[in-house]
Amino acid sequence: MNPPRHTQVAVVGAGPAGLLLALLLRRSGVDCVVLESRDRSYVEQRQRAGILEQSTVDTLRRAGAAARLDREGLPHDGIELRFGVRRHRIDFPALTGGRRVWVYAQTEVVKDLVALQLQEGGPLLFEAPVRAVTGAAADADHCTVHYLHRGQETTLTCDYVVGCDGHHGVVRRAAPQGARSVHERTFPYSWLGILAEAPPCYDELVYAHSERGFALASMRSPAVSRLYLQVPNGTEPDAWPHERIWEELDARFGADRTWRLNRGPITRKSVLPMRSSVTEPMRFGRVLLAGDAAHIVPPTGAKGLNLAASDVTVLARAFVHLYETGSAQLLDSYSDTCLRRVWRAEHFSHFMTTTLHIAPGQSSFDTRLQLSQLDRIATSPHAAAELAENYTGLPTGP
Amino acid sequence: MNPPRHTQVAVVGAGPAGLLLALLLRRSGVDCVVLESRDRSYVEQRQRAGILEQSTVDTLRRAGAAARLDREGLPHDGIELRFGVRRHRIDFPALTGGRRVWVYAQTEVVKDLVALQLQEGGPLLFEAPVRAVTGAAADADHCTVHYLHRGQETTLTCDYVVGCDGHHGVVRRAAPQGARSVHERTFPYSWLGILAEAPPCYDELVYAHSERGFALASMRSPAVSRLYLQVPNGTEPDAWPHERIWEELDARFGADRTWRLNRGPITRKSVLPMRSSVTEPMRFGRVLLAGDAAHIVPPTGAKGLNLAASDVTVLARAFVHLYETGSAQLLDSYSDTCLRRVWRAEHFSHFMTTTLHIAPGQSSFDTRLQLSQLDRIATSPHAAAELAENYTGLPTGP
Repeated sequence: MNPPRHTQVAVVGAGPAGLLLALLLRRSGVDCVVLESRDRSYVEQRQRAGILEQSTVDTLRRAGAAARLDREGLPHDGIELRFGVRRHRIDFPALTGGRRVWVYAQTEVVKDLVALQLQEGGPLLFEAPVRAVTGAAADADHCTVHYLHRGQETTLTCDYVVGCDGHHGVVRRAAPQGARSVHERTFPYSWLGILAEAPPCYDELVYAHSERGFALASMRSPAVSRLYLQVPNGTEPDAWPHERIWEELDARFGADRTWRLNRGPITRKSVLPMRSSVTEPMRFGRVLLAGDAAHIVPPTGAKGLNLAASDVTVLARAFVHLYETGSAQLLDSYSDTCLRRVWRAEHFSHFMTTTLHIAPGQSSFDTRLQLSQLDRIATSPHAAAELAENYTGLPTGP
Repeated sequence: MNPPRHTQVAVVGAGPAGLLLALLLRRSGVDCVVLESRDRSYVEQRQRAGILEQSTVDTLRRAGAAARLDREGLPHDGIELRFGVRRHRIDFPALTGGRRVWVYAQTEVVKDLVALQLQEGGPLLFEAPVRAVTGAAADADHCTVHYLHRGQETTLTCDYVVGCDGHHGVVRRAAPQGARSVHERTFPYSWLGILAEAPPCYDELVYAHSERGFALASMRSPAVSRLYLQVPNGTEPDAWPHERIWEELDARFGADRTWRLNRGPITRKSVLPMRSSVTEPMRFGRVLLAGDAAHIVPPTGAKGLNLAASDVTVLARAFVHLYETGSAQLLDSYSDTCLRRVWRAEHFSHFMTTTLHIAPGQSSFDTRLQLSQLDRIATSPHAAAELAENYTGLPTGP
């Protein structure tokens, strides 16, 4: 089968942003093609986030992509904060009028969306790396995506190109240099993340503030734990033998005679950098950015995948409006609509990150401020609700 | 008249903390003497804060020291935040179940308390600088304050000494070095503050976030404006001629054709450094610290005077309990009780300061985070209530 030569919307990148956008567009009769540089198995195995906000789940359900999520996903009604010798639970539904989150790994979302796309005959080309985008200017009458298909230079013309190809992707570079501004921050620590074949001994995520550094206990399933430790930037995973990881996790979570983590074989171990970045605006003429291609958050707030989902929800609505009515109004407001939510998520992720991590050389004053903030969350209904509303996610705008 | 040679509680410092403590103790029949190194007119003219929390006003009223405050103080039911081109009012009573603040200058509180102390015959010695405190250890059977009276070395023995003599005071140095820890932060900016004979053209305080730097419009009375500009550390007041001050204020508050500040003669101009500091614990044996002697906050949250008032409210209750029942229980918990509120105020003051000021070399990312936080306060009832509760003050513990 030859690849399509023209489409309405070319989507670059088959991560959750690109795949969900394609699904939403197809459901509304907008023609689109997804191009992905990697092969299917790579895309389906990339370990990423694992928390879906209420709005993300709502979107997947409306799109008919939540069958397995509804069977296998683990709804969570709260998280636990540990600091000093205290444990405090944040009750999401009570604080937000019924909102919750789901533990369901991004890899699983991707598998579900790839399967749907292929099953429904939506064009999805793996191993099709995009080399360039031309005709991006708003006054051009169309846009051309240049990519390799089975090693051959190939072109796809389209009305719009959406970059869902991540922070290091090609599409964001199609924007003229002067037209975009990038706002960034790197953090002076990273996460060492492991997957372990050990049943989590906690029902909900546990976020631990410890003088030894931050730790997070999450899960992938009732049999698989996902655990994270704050480590210095530049840490090599091999510097952490398995025994040392378990001991450090127990120390940070305050293990004692009555409680410690369940241990099991560690099947994955990797170091994740922590970065914030926002590219403004999220549209340049016929090129639009969504998900990580437009913004990066540190993982502490569990916002990356959810921002991607809300971006493409807004964008799909804008394309449908355009093709149904001829009005570009929603497309014109796409960037502004998304950026407000993006900055909320950036702020929340930054807040969670800086409240829970110990920076190198951090003063005792700053540590006490963190503990005062955590104490406030544990005692003030407004402070707790502010965390819960941000964590479970704002309704998708506009 | 010879100065007293013995008392139950020696209070060092006749600022609002020391004077209010003396009043509260006298009202409950506890014997105390106040020693102040400066003369009366210096103490009564020192320009300091101007916002009284609900709890502070309640305490002054209960102590019978609020007659003039109730006549001349200006109750405020909110503040205004300005950022970008937006103006947002925080409605205190609506957000806190009826709490508000009062504009009434610290100098006026001090005048009222000095007058009451002298009128009621409470011992209050001006120009009586304390040189040393001995016998502070808990196992000593009394404490001795060594001070100068009319140039003569004089001693006052007592059960307890309370240091209300500020951050640079003598009493905090009486604590053994190893016994106290100091948690500090200095900010990379200062305030240029002016008093102007100009009626404020705003009913409530206006806090302005501007790319040019923070500005605050406050007032001392319906005829006198109190205005502040963020300036670099090390700024000389003379570097700011009056015309430049008014122009910069107008620029930061977003003056336009329809609105600008009322101008008038500037009668005072000074530069205030911004610092946070907490000494822990607030008690060492027979020595206790209250107010600025124990902790400093940057002025952005208007918390300094109010923390002093809550410290001495807790402390007076503890002394009365001790002398009435013989139980030192409340005195033993004084430091812990106060420090929790102190850290809340430190956190809030730090939050207000870092949300509203532009640090030298601040990244565009950090500025956008500030704007996202301000936007959140303007749109989320929980975020607004969190600000309002902290601003109007928590009820005095325990």
